[in-house]
Amino acid sequence: MEKKMIKTPFKERIDKLSIWMQNEKIDAVVIEDSEGRRNSSLAYLSGMPSDAVLIVFSDGESVLLPWDEILAEKIASADRIIGYSEYERNPVTAVTKICKEKLTAGRIELTSQTPHVLYSEIAGSLPAFEIVCRVDGAAEKLLLMRAVKDDAEIEIYREAGKLTNMMIDSLCAGLESGEIKTELEAALFIEAESRRLGAEGSSFETLAAGTTRSWGIHAFPGYTAGPIGDVLPGRCGGLSIIDCGLKYKGYCTDITITICRGKLSARQEKMVSLVDEAHSLAVKTAVNGVTAAKLARAVDQHFAADGWVMPHGLGHGVGLDVHEDPGIKDKEIYDKPIVPGMIFTIEPGLYDAESGGTRLENDYLMTENGAEALTASRILRLP
Amino acid sequence: MEKKMIKTPFKERIDKLSIWMQNEKIDAVVIEDSEGRRNSSLAYLSGMPSDAVLIVFSDGESVLLPWDEILAEKIASADRIIGYSEYERNPVTAVTKICKEKLTAGRIELTSQTPHVLYSEIAGSLPAFEIVCRVDGAAEKLLLMRAVKDDAEIEIYREAGKLTNMMIDSLCAGLESGEIKTELEAALFIEAESRRLGAEGSSFETLAAGTTRSWGIHAFPGYTAGPIGDVLPGRCGGLSIIDCGLKYKGYCTDITITICRGKLSARQEKMVSLVDEAHSLAVKTAVNGVTAAKLARAVDQHFAADGWVMPHGLGHGVGLDVHEDPGIKDKEIYDKPIVPGMIFTIEPGLYDAESGGTRLENDYLMTENGAEALTASRILRLP
Repeated sequence: MEKKMIKTPFKERIDKLSIWMQNEKIDAVVIEDSEGRRNSSLAYLSGMPSDAVLIVFSDGESVLLPWDEILAEKIASADRIIGYSEYERNPVTAVTKICKEKLTAGRIELTSQTPHVLYSEIAGSLPAFEIVCRVDGAAEKLLLMRAVKDDAEIEIYREAGKLTNMMIDSLCAGLESGEIKTELEAALFIEAESRRLGAEGSSFETLAAGTTRSWGIHAFPGYTAGPIGDVLPGRCGGLSIIDCGLKYKGYCTDITITICRGKLSARQEKMVSLVDEAHSLAVKTAVNGVTAAKLARAVDQHFAADGWVMPHGLGHGVGLDVHEDPGIKDKEIYDKPIVPGMIFTIEPGLYDAESGGTRLENDYLMTENGAEALTASRILRLP
Repeated sequence: MEKKMIKTPFKERIDKLSIWMQNEKIDAVVIEDSEGRRNSSLAYLSGMPSDAVLIVFSDGESVLLPWDEILAEKIASADRIIGYSEYERNPVTAVTKICKEKLTAGRIELTSQTPHVLYSEIAGSLPAFEIVCRVDGAAEKLLLMRAVKDDAEIEIYREAGKLTNMMIDSLCAGLESGEIKTELEAALFIEAESRRLGAEGSSFETLAAGTTRSWGIHAFPGYTAGPIGDVLPGRCGGLSIIDCGLKYKGYCTDITITICRGKLSARQEKMVSLVDEAHSLAVKTAVNGVTAAKLARAVDQHFAADGWVMPHGLGHGVGLDVHEDPGIKDKEIYDKPIVPGMIFTIEPGLYDAESGGTRLENDYLMTENGAEALTASRILRLP
């Protein structure tokens, strides 16, 4: 219960949120991260990686209720840290007691992920308060804050990009030498190499899909004991995909390599060259302030000109989560500028149930001068 | 849009749910699994592993709206499979259109995980319908169904237990021989060995904690490049923990090994023997129909008699999720019998910031004759 010193950069982020809260006339915001309902804004505001409730008051005070108190005392940052078990790990009890300690009335905001039933219980338990739970509220404000990386985050990403590139280089070397022959070997190599390089590990389960599975946008299962970088049965060549990334100081990179083995069919060659061109086109189009929808449209039109359709978006922001704002798709809701500080993927891909799939994905930082490449993934040609 | 043949065991599960729906006067249940809001009941009812909306009607008809249509056509089971993109991947649009196609009015239930804002939008979009979203509704009915495994699931678990035991044996052999010396080596070994044995992989990120980190209930990060099975700096011995499991045909096992290296301190020895005794006591206490609370209480009292407190529950159900019903804690809400068909962990553990931690965890199937061990984890003594 002792008063702690809240550390930078968490203090700056809490302060920014509390100014927003004052404007919105919100007295407290409740952020919960639990199994089945993750919210990385907890880590963004407190440094606690997961499994806690954070209550931020409009005067900037923050109270963290962690499941693992020892861990929180070691690494988290908040004005007060109180074991969640003191409230029976019940969010209704915790929010009710902590808010009533400090306030007699006011507006308490629950994030938009909050289940309807939890909202109803908290509202019932705090009749003197107005419980706010809305689209485009505190959770979305935090996502917008997180979409534009601050200096501390950009520094982490420059380093994460370097580590990712080292990992890509050694992965490609292993594929070229024949040391990595299966999806499993590729995935475990990425896991081990990421950690050897000083990252926390992979940023999501590696999707390693050999030629007979690369038609899947997200291969299921993520990787098997089967071959990668192989030739399609009965064909002279084949397309494999490795979609992976590493997590460094909490932040995710996300890249995809296509492996072209042997002599591709005309259709496969067409798919690969369309994707490669689309990637270059997107990088060229990604000038400071371009809207995400316009960027995506350029690539969609490029594919459409040859009669192809990409079955997923062109890219997405990366950060504490591997998928963050800005979303990059040709839809009206994405008609917003990509501004300096945003870090995002560009990942054109084409898929065919017979021929397999191809995708090329890299991470970019938007700067005053346009998109700066953080990673250098590639289309790998193997004889 | 073609009519598909719905397969066993999914048909039996849907039928059971639809009978419950008729009793509850619910005309349609909506189950959604998406990034950030997982719900394994989707896989339980349709075989689709993730990323889809499933609508079940009270006449037993099921409509699956997958993000990846190719994958769904290959492996999922539902009366109708329609690409989610036909509804712009918007749950409000999808639920509105599908329900209005078949019904003019009635009661549509959204699961209790449904965010308040999504509930409000769907309610606004279907004014002729009553939208039900409650605690102890369809989602909880499905969790209760999932808690008692059917024959198909028990067969999978007997096999999963065998594979887990083979993995434990080879992991312990590697620790004994000195081939596995780091947390990373242990974690990657588990990942590779699981898949080599025919499982889909590990069932969750392995928690491998060497002597200086084993105080954490759930080590963070899960594993590092640091040593495991080592001696605490400046001491004659140490305690390490490996908490892991494998996923086989969608189902999770969950076990924990404690590694005792060298000469332990009297305190460490006491912790280990208390945990070992607690594990045996729990297995003996786990007769058919024992309540989960009573089972947990026996162990809590055993620890309390020596002045120790276990900072987590005694166990939990396992299934498609690694944490399922029944929860096994000494609380009133867990005062419910453990019945035949339930599969659950028993995992007593003690932790100390100085001495480290120890936990022993195995999986059990409740039968008419009491708890049957599915796994054979152990406390491993190394010289």
